[in-house]
Amino acid sequence: MSRVSRRTLLTGGVGLAGLGVGAAAVGAGREMSAPQPEASTLPFYGRHQSGIVTPMQTHASYIGIDLLDKADHQALHGILRMWSQDAANLTQGKPGFSDTEPELATSPARLSMTVGLGPGAFTSAALAARRPSWLAPLPAFAIDRLQEQWGQTDLVVLVASDDPMSLAHAVRAVIAPVRRRTRLRWVQQGFHHGRNLFGQVDGTVQPADDRHDDLVWNDGAEQKWLAGGTSLVLRRIAMNMDTWEALDRRGRELSTGRTLDNGAPLTGVDEHDEPVFTATRGGVPVIPESSHIARAHRRSDREQFLRRPYSYDSPPDSGLIFATYQRDPLVQYVPVQQRLSDHDALNEWTTPIGSAVYAMLPGPKEYLGETLFA
Amino acid sequence: MSRVSRRTLLTGGVGLAGLGVGAAAVGAGREMSAPQPEASTLPFYGRHQSGIVTPMQTHASYIGIDLLDKADHQALHGILRMWSQDAANLTQGKPGFSDTEPELATSPARLSMTVGLGPGAFTSAALAARRPSWLAPLPAFAIDRLQEQWGQTDLVVLVASDDPMSLAHAVRAVIAPVRRRTRLRWVQQGFHHGRNLFGQVDGTVQPADDRHDDLVWNDGAEQKWLAGGTSLVLRRIAMNMDTWEALDRRGRELSTGRTLDNGAPLTGVDEHDEPVFTATRGGVPVIPESSHIARAHRRSDREQFLRRPYSYDSPPDSGLIFATYQRDPLVQYVPVQQRLSDHDALNEWTTPIGSAVYAMLPGPKEYLGETLFA
Repeated sequence: MSRVSRRTLLTGGVGLAGLGVGAAAVGAGREMSAPQPEASTLPFYGRHQSGIVTPMQTHASYIGIDLLDKADHQALHGILRMWSQDAANLTQGKPGFSDTEPELATSPARLSMTVGLGPGAFTSAALAARRPSWLAPLPAFAIDRLQEQWGQTDLVVLVASDDPMSLAHAVRAVIAPVRRRTRLRWVQQGFHHGRNLFGQVDGTVQPADDRHDDLVWNDGAEQKWLAGGTSLVLRRIAMNMDTWEALDRRGRELSTGRTLDNGAPLTGVDEHDEPVFTATRGGVPVIPESSHIARAHRRSDREQFLRRPYSYDSPPDSGLIFATYQRDPLVQYVPVQQRLSDHDALNEWTTPIGSAVYAMLPGPKEYLGETLFA
Repeated sequence: MSRVSRRTLLTGGVGLAGLGVGAAAVGAGREMSAPQPEASTLPFYGRHQSGIVTPMQTHASYIGIDLLDKADHQALHGILRMWSQDAANLTQGKPGFSDTEPELATSPARLSMTVGLGPGAFTSAALAARRPSWLAPLPAFAIDRLQEQWGQTDLVVLVASDDPMSLAHAVRAVIAPVRRRTRLRWVQQGFHHGRNLFGQVDGTVQPADDRHDDLVWNDGAEQKWLAGGTSLVLRRIAMNMDTWEALDRRGRELSTGRTLDNGAPLTGVDEHDEPVFTATRGGVPVIPESSHIARAHRRSDREQFLRRPYSYDSPPDSGLIFATYQRDPLVQYVPVQQRLSDHDALNEWTTPIGSAVYAMLPGPKEYLGETLFA
């Protein structure tokens, strides 16, 4: 189906009819990913869910939830219907279905609510055949010190907003109405700044916008229902501020391969300059082979993924909620992570303590998961 | 000393000389409390500490710290000197003394770092006579379900900013350099919205700006060193969202005595209308006698204090970091809290789980605590 005909179909769909928001804010397909600094609402309906290629909001909470009865796929269906109803309203600045604090809904501040499914959501007989092949625990990495409390869940909801109250209100709308059928496992709260708590410019390397269809969005080839969705790899990475700060500034820059000043590679002057890994000074590589960017740099065109880093800070614990989105995590993400695990200078100061993988649903015409249950 | 001569003294003082920020941002005395929506820095030096009558920043963390050796008043002196040095820089957008992430200091976003002392800070022989008489645990209230983990500490630092990264960076500058001599007890992280998580407009009743000298700031009559300081009562109040939301909207408004729509008293139309407690409808008080505002309403002119409510949200736990500032908590705050404890319709849905009292230091000429150690 061509992009144009797809969009025509979508904008004529039932889900969009009653929205009452401007076309600029709704726009299906690629339009969703365009920066909208003036807009205070993000679309809920469309080919893709908001909150994935959307310019990052200041605040985000990833919510991990387990189903109490994984065999009951009708319960999952009901949960997704309920969340859709609330998200369709809350993201547009309207109260949720049984919202008792409607005044907290009026300033969404680019609120997005983005839903994904873990392996456990596909346990029921009705859905087992619809599980994407890559939706499984990541291979064990030698650097991992994973804690069960930050582990894989059956469901994930990413709630993000530029306003912490809008976010808190929406988080409650996710958790409260499904409590009888689920168990809340964790909430990972983060904030986005452009730098992480190590002071590093973070999230520099990203797929070009015109590669999102290719590198981020699922094409439905393996699982037709997932077309327009994607995969999320969610890693919780503790950062040891004390030992990091014991290192001198030059040592910190060499471990990353970038300047702390503006994030430029050590061979360049601007953040987005292409690093030159072959450059040497006095016979020594300017960017050490063991540096983070040397190890993380893609060895092939497929080793690209969208990075969405949020910092978390719960003194004395702090670190990064490192989220990546890609069509296929095994092909795009895992080879890079394996290299970093094998050797990355930064490993001395960072420890992965949580890891999970999710299939992020396609954007809804009527409700989230509609193609899964079709 | 008149206001003019005091200001002349201050602006000629050592502490201000090297600041290099505009006079409008520095201003001693009353000028500090004026709203400065355009300014991205708040003054560190002055008659009063910033962060008390300052328009509330979006994010705040109260940090509770215990001294390892309460008898060593020189250690306390050193800690206050160190914090002063960092706060004088960080609040002005400059790196802290041993700041290894100077890039995180460049956008203070109205950062303030406000320091106070608990009873334990006055334990040493050298300082015992300088403890204000009111600096002691509050009387026990029947509604309290206090948890040790949110209890009184020897020191408190309120770090507040409109930017969560600026805040996280400053929180680390508070905690990290004093760890060998202190123990971190708690960090209470909150955000400010104008409404709390119950959806109520919060913080409506405040002393008039021209009453701050009288009702908020200490006059030095009892403890000369504290002139220009104040007291902080810090209460952590858990809010039971589930039972609150089970109440209908009218019931919720009657329990508070205000509309949920705009916070107007039930006898008025605008938030700041004076409530009319004598008004009846069909013989029944329009504002129930058991409502929160009826119970909290001052019975005398002294029963006024500054309210600085921040919401906290750690799903499934959420509530309010309720901070009040007043010259004398026993005279101004406790009678009101006693009435609320005796009976407040809101008590059914709220539970105080933390409580502490602090002497907030005067603003510094050179460093925080200079008058205490003089």
